[in-house]
Amino acid sequence: MNLLSFLSRRGTAPVARERLQILLAHERTAFGRSDLVAVLREEILAVIAKHVAIDKDKVKVTMERGDAVSTLGVDIELPDNKVARLASA
Amino acid sequence: MNLLSFLSRRGTAPVARERLQILLAHERTAFGRSDLVAVLREEILAVIAKHVAIDKDKVKVTMERGDAVSTLGVDIELPDNKVARLASA
Repeated sequence: MNLLSFLSRRGTAPVARERLQILLAHERTAFGRSDLVAVLREEILAVIAKHVAIDKDKVKVTMERGDAVSTLGVDIELPDNKVARLASA
Repeated sequence: MNLLSFLSRRGTAPVARERLQILLAHERTAFGRSDLVAVLREEILAVIAKHVAIDKDKVKVTMERGDAVSTLGVDIELPDNKVARLASA
């Protein structure tokens, strides 16, 4: 899950590629819901796709399921907004 | 953002309280979309609320906006699923 390195970046200089990362972690009890991360995965991607044109090849999804914690990591490289802005200007 | 401690827990023992945490990080270019995290915030919460009864008092939302990176942290303590299961049994 490279979101940790992503967060520690904290630099102020803009980057070359616009990027959106999501980390979802579900910590369960003995009676916890088992598949919450899997259930939410598609719907969260659908919410993002409503606001940003997503290239399927630029989306990395990782899921890890432990006994007590399940995590979902989504790493999306966003299309160049400059081109989009010039086109709509 | 205590999601990092949450992730490092990785224990196998179930916890007392079921918890869902989301971390959204948007790394912008010079022409990047400015408010993506704010736009996605409400819709992601709405997606979760479709699947889990959320108590507004048990939801902590933190937003940080840097020059190049904006982050959204959502920490939700989920209602006890055991009670829900017994009620529906």
